[in-house]
Amino acid sequence: MNPDDGFRRIGIVGLGLIGGSAAFAARRVFPDAVIVGVDRDGDVAIAARQLGAVHEAGISLDSLAGADLVLLAAPVTANIAALERLSGLLDPGAVVTDVGSTKRAMLDGARRMLPGAPFVGGHPLAGAARGGLEASRPDLFERRPWVLTPEAQTPRPAVARVATFVSRLGAVPIEIDPGVHDHVLAFTSHLPQLTASALMHVVGEAVEDSGLRLAGRGLADTTRVAASPVSIWRDICATNADEILPALDALIETLRQVRDDLAEGHPPDRVFHSAGRWRRKLDG
Amino acid sequence: MNPDDGFRRIGIVGLGLIGGSAAFAARRVFPDAVIVGVDRDGDVAIAARQLGAVHEAGISLDSLAGADLVLLAAPVTANIAALERLSGLLDPGAVVTDVGSTKRAMLDGARRMLPGAPFVGGHPLAGAARGGLEASRPDLFERRPWVLTPEAQTPRPAVARVATFVSRLGAVPIEIDPGVHDHVLAFTSHLPQLTASALMHVVGEAVEDSGLRLAGRGLADTTRVAASPVSIWRDICATNADEILPALDALIETLRQVRDDLAEGHPPDRVFHSAGRWRRKLDG
Repeated sequence: MNPDDGFRRIGIVGLGLIGGSAAFAARRVFPDAVIVGVDRDGDVAIAARQLGAVHEAGISLDSLAGADLVLLAAPVTANIAALERLSGLLDPGAVVTDVGSTKRAMLDGARRMLPGAPFVGGHPLAGAARGGLEASRPDLFERRPWVLTPEAQTPRPAVARVATFVSRLGAVPIEIDPGVHDHVLAFTSHLPQLTASALMHVVGEAVEDSGLRLAGRGLADTTRVAASPVSIWRDICATNADEILPALDALIETLRQVRDDLAEGHPPDRVFHSAGRWRRKLDG
Repeated sequence: MNPDDGFRRIGIVGLGLIGGSAAFAARRVFPDAVIVGVDRDGDVAIAARQLGAVHEAGISLDSLAGADLVLLAAPVTANIAALERLSGLLDPGAVVTDVGSTKRAMLDGARRMLPGAPFVGGHPLAGAARGGLEASRPDLFERRPWVLTPEAQTPRPAVARVATFVSRLGAVPIEIDPGVHDHVLAFTSHLPQLTASALMHVVGEAVEDSGLRLAGRGLADTTRVAASPVSIWRDICATNADEILPALDALIETLRQVRDDLAEGHPPDRVFHSAGRWRRKLDG
């Protein structure tokens, strides 16, 4: 298996924003490969073929037979469930990767259910305000980090092959330990999602429709991700709760300090200044 | 005092994003008026004149003598401090308004310190990712709500005059009780700010620079307002703490429920679904 080998048959499971964008990008950069899409929703599979994201599409994993690379882009628990079926389908030398937002549970699943094929965990750090196939675009990964989480026993040629694949999609592959990934993402992604959802719930219930009409750009930005698909976030909560809980505790503790400052007549200066500093770093 | 009278001399105190944008818009829609800008930062005053936002600019409120309308666009406590000086300066018939994010403290100040001139509280619900004079633009208020908070004793001709002024700037005037304003904004604006600041502080301290490099659009959106000027938010906290505290308590309580759900192995479905529903309403 040479990482620079061409890809002849690329399977993509789950044709939402990430899977659909990977399909569009792969069609463009691997013009000789057959792109096969699978989605449990037959209408989405049909739409993916009609939109030209994939050459073949269906609802069954069976169509992935003969693929030399399979990208699992469904929610994490669906990706894990797909592994068992894949293990009987794939040729030796095929490599399997995923795009899930948590990595340890997926790697556990691959060790148990896909002993025959090399599995390389992955997570493209790319997104958009709207999800779904209809929001897909081939440049979604352009210059975005695409985390790969190989373990000590992961064959290096398989890692190199996936790194080649994601580089060709325009992304920048970065290798990170799976546990470090799940810890960091608990703060940089999962905590912001839960916070935005909690905030939107509290604000909506308190002021209702008439009050929301007085909302400005601040609330809209701060809660944008609260419209994200629930299925993805159920899975993230289920597979990373041990890392998310301490992150939630830290936020609750900070909000309590802010509350105490205000109750004592002080602005929460320490938090304002620290937040401003980190926010400017985030912008680079 | 006729609300349709032209404005001959318009004073604007505080030449940040809101004051600067009001100056640019006023120059355009009141071509016969002299626009006078005051900022405690002399460099900002000079820049405002050089950029063409105002005809005259300085650091002293004295230049507002003869104005028929004064718009206070500094942070709330600076606006309150300006009232006393204004009371000795303005001609009978001049009307004073403000753009502060909290209204009850400002109205208390006007009752105490500006007995001679009619004061109409105001709050344009317009903003931008960046603050400051350099981010100002004449179309900032275009079709945005501009809340006015008259009290029972506020002269109706003064309210009509301010409503005319903000309509000409492109905004949509909406009258709301000052207490209702401060309650609703505690949820729709002040709580999101404190939440974004607390979140950014917690995330930055936990993952530091190396982890922030793995952050995607979700964290960036959710924390955008954490880069807002601290001076404005200190004043908002100081003048609306009694409304912000119950809002913070509600958020902390919801985050605790989310935490308990996760600790028991459940996704926080109720919050996810409620948040998604309210978020879609926010988008209209």
